[in-house]
Amino acid sequence: MAVIVQKYGGTSVGDADRIRAVARRVAVTRLAGNDVVVVVSAMGHTTDQFVELSRQVSPNDHPREMDMLLTAGERISMALLAMAIRDLGVEAVSLTGSQAGILTSMVHGRAEIEEVRAFRVKEHLDKGHVVIVAGFQGVSAVNKEITTLGRGGSDATAVAIASYLQADACEIYTDVDGVFTADPRVVPEARKLDEVSFDEMGEMAAAGAGVLMLRSVELGRRWGVPLHVRSSFHDGEGTWVREAVGGPPALVGIAHDPDQALVGLTGGGGPAAVVEALEAAGVAAETVGTGPEGVAAAVARDQAAAAVAALAAAAGPATVLLEEEVGKVSVVGAGLRDRPGAAAEVAGALGRGGIEVRLTATTPLRVSCLVPSPRLDEAVRLLHREFFSYGSEEGR
Amino acid sequence: MAVIVQKYGGTSVGDADRIRAVARRVAVTRLAGNDVVVVVSAMGHTTDQFVELSRQVSPNDHPREMDMLLTAGERISMALLAMAIRDLGVEAVSLTGSQAGILTSMVHGRAEIEEVRAFRVKEHLDKGHVVIVAGFQGVSAVNKEITTLGRGGSDATAVAIASYLQADACEIYTDVDGVFTADPRVVPEARKLDEVSFDEMGEMAAAGAGVLMLRSVELGRRWGVPLHVRSSFHDGEGTWVREAVGGPPALVGIAHDPDQALVGLTGGGGPAAVVEALEAAGVAAETVGTGPEGVAAAVARDQAAAAVAALAAAAGPATVLLEEEVGKVSVVGAGLRDRPGAAAEVAGALGRGGIEVRLTATTPLRVSCLVPSPRLDEAVRLLHREFFSYGSEEGR
Repeated sequence: MAVIVQKYGGTSVGDADRIRAVARRVAVTRLAGNDVVVVVSAMGHTTDQFVELSRQVSPNDHPREMDMLLTAGERISMALLAMAIRDLGVEAVSLTGSQAGILTSMVHGRAEIEEVRAFRVKEHLDKGHVVIVAGFQGVSAVNKEITTLGRGGSDATAVAIASYLQADACEIYTDVDGVFTADPRVVPEARKLDEVSFDEMGEMAAAGAGVLMLRSVELGRRWGVPLHVRSSFHDGEGTWVREAVGGPPALVGIAHDPDQALVGLTGGGGPAAVVEALEAAGVAAETVGTGPEGVAAAVARDQAAAAVAALAAAAGPATVLLEEEVGKVSVVGAGLRDRPGAAAEVAGALGRGGIEVRLTATTPLRVSCLVPSPRLDEAVRLLHREFFSYGSEEGR
Repeated sequence: MAVIVQKYGGTSVGDADRIRAVARRVAVTRLAGNDVVVVVSAMGHTTDQFVELSRQVSPNDHPREMDMLLTAGERISMALLAMAIRDLGVEAVSLTGSQAGILTSMVHGRAEIEEVRAFRVKEHLDKGHVVIVAGFQGVSAVNKEITTLGRGGSDATAVAIASYLQADACEIYTDVDGVFTADPRVVPEARKLDEVSFDEMGEMAAAGAGVLMLRSVELGRRWGVPLHVRSSFHDGEGTWVREAVGGPPALVGIAHDPDQALVGLTGGGGPAAVVEALEAAGVAAETVGTGPEGVAAAVARDQAAAAVAALAAAAGPATVLLEEEVGKVSVVGAGLRDRPGAAAEVAGALGRGGIEVRLTATTPLRVSCLVPSPRLDEAVRLLHREFFSYGSEEGR
């Protein structure tokens, strides 16, 4: 008998029909003899509705009360899901984050899970109950205040519970079939990966692959919980994300991130000065390079204004450049370790395709190039053809 | 500095504007130097919406999960109210029933408050915070399950918290100005009472006066908490409900209850047999009398079918009578104790007005008559004229 944690997002429990569909999947898993914990997000647009309601009442920020308000969302979805599961003859109970022992840091809106004391979850599992746990929410360890975990919070809850229970799998249900060698909306011939390592998945997530949040990947790695990213629409195997994967190091995929900006400093200050100025302003500069025009750094587009302000303060407005119409394309995989010329290979392929590379940066598991936004999708397809064509030895 | 508990129902917090209006009242009370605890119900029709949502998901009863679902309602209203109060420069925090230490029996849907451990409420008051407490909800003392208190639950929460804090007043805000000598919608000349005893208010509530639930009156009496029933629309004094009231015993009001039914047994079985059969079926027979046709009892109309079934099982279908079109009119007040002929007086007045009295029953504080439904309002007005006319010595 395996212990399975299943996580369903807001879309999966968006209305009564979908809740009943999730209930059937849960019941089948339970009736196959598994212990099952289900982590759910709030239904569809509940969170947006609550935010709108709060804006009608108050123009100001009230982080504590906002957490109190938002946590009503999972309470609704988890109670309804428990009802639907019980209707199928399977005993089920719902537990809030607090009841499930999700202890967090004392920060509202983006708390981190510090400890899991899920003994109530365990007690119910021991009685044969399916346990529905509210995702995204917890209670602060120090003073028992209700907290929320921020973006990707429900995945984090699922991984934390799976770790506590030493679960055999933590299944993350999504609207796609798993992790692909590229976003299938951009590259129709992209292939689903059977497995990928935490390290590689972390690089994919950091480089823009949206299927799994970087945070869940890091928690999975830290706590040693294998993740199974799979479709909520059918029973087929998805992609396993785990510590070690079979076979020799290979390339796993092309990730891309359309929401980038390029900030630069001309005529003064080296890369170190740029990084320092950006870090002091709380701006993450993922990729920094030098070119004929000076030093350039890639930042998330919604941090571009802050980045420009920081550089201008450090070196004077006249020397700061900003280019907002850029995107990042990345080749990811442990196989890059064995290819010292990979960066040149990637940039070369783009260059041969007539796509200007504005900046290149590498990590041991990734080569990233900033390209003009209008050419981004083309760059993804080009690199996928180059590195992941059927018959290519590069990909797996 | 006084300690004030204020309770606002769902209508009072029905939308953003009303929430801000309640916030202003709370802030004024706080800024006058009082410690303030606010107990709130769920916004307007939230509960109905949740019930509808649960029906879309499941046709069955799931009491535990229904409590989990419904308790999201106060979570929403209390968080929004706390935001609105904070916007006025008054520090405020919301607490769930569980956080506020409302410990209940282990019954879903209609739990009773067994103990109050509101130390978190006290801590926040000591820091000068207004504390918003979720009404209607608690947590079972034995196994920490979320429970709801059923009808009148928010009033019960308010009285319980007021008792714990030894509050100077528990203010119950309503859409009327207080307790009246009769329902002003039926008797326009009805007068607001300045004060009424728990005993008398209990009889009024039991006899159909809707302004305050019998349950809150009983809790107020049991825990010695003076209640102030007052309007949420203006600052005028309402009606105080307390243990002892000033002046000699008097009459306090005419209560009426339109939703009654008369069940009877002809030719067999005395009053004791009728009461026994009804009690065994869980039907409360408030008023039982004997007449030429046999034994008759007044029951709530929604229990009429159960009452008929119980009597038919006990004595045979042919002997059971049911009359659904009756209502109850009651004269209430400690002054009745000094009037041995009160029942005859009341029935006589109705008779002189040409209103048939189907059944009469008395308690030390009340005379009740069952009359045909179409004549009920007329009976209320007639008795109010008889006993509460301006210049009458009877009423106060």
